[in-house]
Amino acid sequence: MSKKNVIVGQSGGPTAVINSSLYGVVFEAMENTDYIRTCYGMINGIEGFLEGRYLDFAEALPGGNLEFLKSTPGAYLGSCRYKLPDDLSDPVYPRLFEKFEELNIGYFFYIGGNDSMDTVSKLSRYAKQIDSQIRIMGEPKTIDNDLILTDHTPGYGSAARYVAETVREITLDACVYEKKSVTIVEIMGRHAGWLTAASVLARKYVGDNPLLIYLPEVDFDEESFLARVEASFEKNCNVVVCVSEGIHDKTGTFICEYDSSVGTDSFGHKMLAGCGKYLENLVRDRLGVKARSVELNVNQRCSAAMISHTDQQEAVMAGRYGLQVAIKRGITGKMISFVRCSDDPYVVACGLEDVNEVCNQEKTVPLEWITNDGTDISEDFITYATPLIQGTPPIPMGEDGLPAFAYRK
Amino acid sequence: MSKKNVIVGQSGGPTAVINSSLYGVVFEAMENTDYIRTCYGMINGIEGFLEGRYLDFAEALPGGNLEFLKSTPGAYLGSCRYKLPDDLSDPVYPRLFEKFEELNIGYFFYIGGNDSMDTVSKLSRYAKQIDSQIRIMGEPKTIDNDLILTDHTPGYGSAARYVAETVREITLDACVYEKKSVTIVEIMGRHAGWLTAASVLARKYVGDNPLLIYLPEVDFDEESFLARVEASFEKNCNVVVCVSEGIHDKTGTFICEYDSSVGTDSFGHKMLAGCGKYLENLVRDRLGVKARSVELNVNQRCSAAMISHTDQQEAVMAGRYGLQVAIKRGITGKMISFVRCSDDPYVVACGLEDVNEVCNQEKTVPLEWITNDGTDISEDFITYATPLIQGTPPIPMGEDGLPAFAYRK
Repeated sequence: MSKKNVIVGQSGGPTAVINSSLYGVVFEAMENTDYIRTCYGMINGIEGFLEGRYLDFAEALPGGNLEFLKSTPGAYLGSCRYKLPDDLSDPVYPRLFEKFEELNIGYFFYIGGNDSMDTVSKLSRYAKQIDSQIRIMGEPKTIDNDLILTDHTPGYGSAARYVAETVREITLDACVYEKKSVTIVEIMGRHAGWLTAASVLARKYVGDNPLLIYLPEVDFDEESFLARVEASFEKNCNVVVCVSEGIHDKTGTFICEYDSSVGTDSFGHKMLAGCGKYLENLVRDRLGVKARSVELNVNQRCSAAMISHTDQQEAVMAGRYGLQVAIKRGITGKMISFVRCSDDPYVVACGLEDVNEVCNQEKTVPLEWITNDGTDISEDFITYATPLIQGTPPIPMGEDGLPAFAYRK
Repeated sequence: MSKKNVIVGQSGGPTAVINSSLYGVVFEAMENTDYIRTCYGMINGIEGFLEGRYLDFAEALPGGNLEFLKSTPGAYLGSCRYKLPDDLSDPVYPRLFEKFEELNIGYFFYIGGNDSMDTVSKLSRYAKQIDSQIRIMGEPKTIDNDLILTDHTPGYGSAARYVAETVREITLDACVYEKKSVTIVEIMGRHAGWLTAASVLARKYVGDNPLLIYLPEVDFDEESFLARVEASFEKNCNVVVCVSEGIHDKTGTFICEYDSSVGTDSFGHKMLAGCGKYLENLVRDRLGVKARSVELNVNQRCSAAMISHTDQQEAVMAGRYGLQVAIKRGITGKMISFVRCSDDPYVVACGLEDVNEVCNQEKTVPLEWITNDGTDISEDFITYATPLIQGTPPIPMGEDGLPAFAYRK
């Protein structure tokens, strides 16, 4: 059997463990020298690769340096938001496959979310059409946990841990004064509320904050929100409310759009703020209490200190598994999925799903997991999410006292 | 010698290690049973104590539970913002000292910043006036690092580590696309730029982000800021800018006030946003590039995962030292300070400063540490700050996979 080369790319927004998936693919490629000669990385995904930008991992991260990848946030290879044309007769396809040919590529891996699985789908269909033997595989990643046909996605566990741990800390910070206050925490997730739901894990005892949790799966109503906040003061004078950035009213208008029509500053710049800031102002104005908002922002997806060890190990596992089945079983056109075998003890196995079915679909939080008139989250969710946020992996620290990450030269 | 009791309180905004200082005082009080019978804690500071609210640590955190205090964010005892009257003949003073008498208090500790040292100053002057033997001591804390007569303050090291580590991570997150972008990171510090300056520690190599750093010690000018950002694109297409929340123009107007006059939404609520959001909009509008802003917000002062071990150990040391000198040397009216003996190896000793000199004063970043026309930070600062952010203490984790903190019943 003649040896082939591997090429791997990253696409879409980063997560805390997208580089752990990359590590898994590269590590396994380097282990299987009977099948693989060289493992390449596309710089800035398909887009950069089309411009001829790629690297050789043996040169870029020689020896033990590869280990630093595992806990490096961001996308080591750089990312892109590039959609391949729907029309498979577009000249970009032969261009790409010629480049694959030049590099003697036998295995193509793309790590990403919905849009990236669309790329994998198109490339695998084109490969079939031209009878190419290149194995085309998708490695999932997204903090949003919104991919179908998988129990959860790599990246979600770490972001969920960030949300849970940070909300627990914000709650302690918000409760130091004996004076009515409302803290709104705005969490990522435009269409799916998985991350916001994870804020329920912050609760330490019955009646603990966050007292209210709002997901985009349920229509948001300002008046009932205000009434709920007011009622919550009976439980605690400091109320923490977690909201998804994507909450919207019953007409479908996002709450964050409520003031996008106004705020222009003296230079005519339009001021855009999130729904957290909007609700903070609403609470202060209507309830006359101290209000603050905290937007968790990109830290949700790039905090090394809060990587879930489980998430990191699963991301590596998915990367390695994908490479193994591609080289040893000739699998192509599939996305690696997670199949949960058991909650307690938590056991997960890798599966293979048809990318054509995965791409461009979205999995939201089941409505039966959203309780108390859309202001709380059920025990079922807690059972589902708790295993995903477990453990703290070792993070290599540099001489400067900060995490030592992998940098591309 | 008849045994006396200790009472300790917390005041002002919390830090990640304000409870480590509390731990130090309580631990040392419990060790010195020859001098001390009971260690009490005021709930919500002087204000709560005047309402008769306090606890006994032996009951509240029995046995090993005290250990959880060390890494619990927020203020375990609750805090207050209560200013004692300037007039020492105000009836609040005899009321307070009667309560001290009732509890057989011999030692009073107050953990806080400028305003809390003002409380310590007044109480110690009143004690002298009435010839009370109660020892009145101040334990410093503030993430702002703006207390005079001390090398640095407990709380600063952890917040500085949070800033440095988070900005390094945000930089990785911000650089994944090969497309011009500007990320504005807004950091706490209204008058003193110590925390914003710590963002320079995020830089991994020459030319790394953050490429621009703006402190409130220097007047901010929009046009030269825009020119600097534009020029920075020559170094990196993804530019990260760190700004202090307190940056202001040469007339003294805060940049965050530039749009407070406008933004009222459809309900007439005034929209207030920080300077980061303002600059994000300015950059998008004037430079026509992708822009984002991240407000680090309260996480800077309440992240357990990013506690600096050095900071934690020093906070404990200051707490213990204060108690020791009060009981064994009869010291009163002093704030514990840190005296740096050496940078490398880093050696710090505790000192004692007159609270009357400390209170209501402010220490800002020396202008000679601010370089490159007010857009960068010098090596001298790096030498100063690097030792303060070192080390990761063990954080006890609960069965839920999240940090186990100390909760008041």
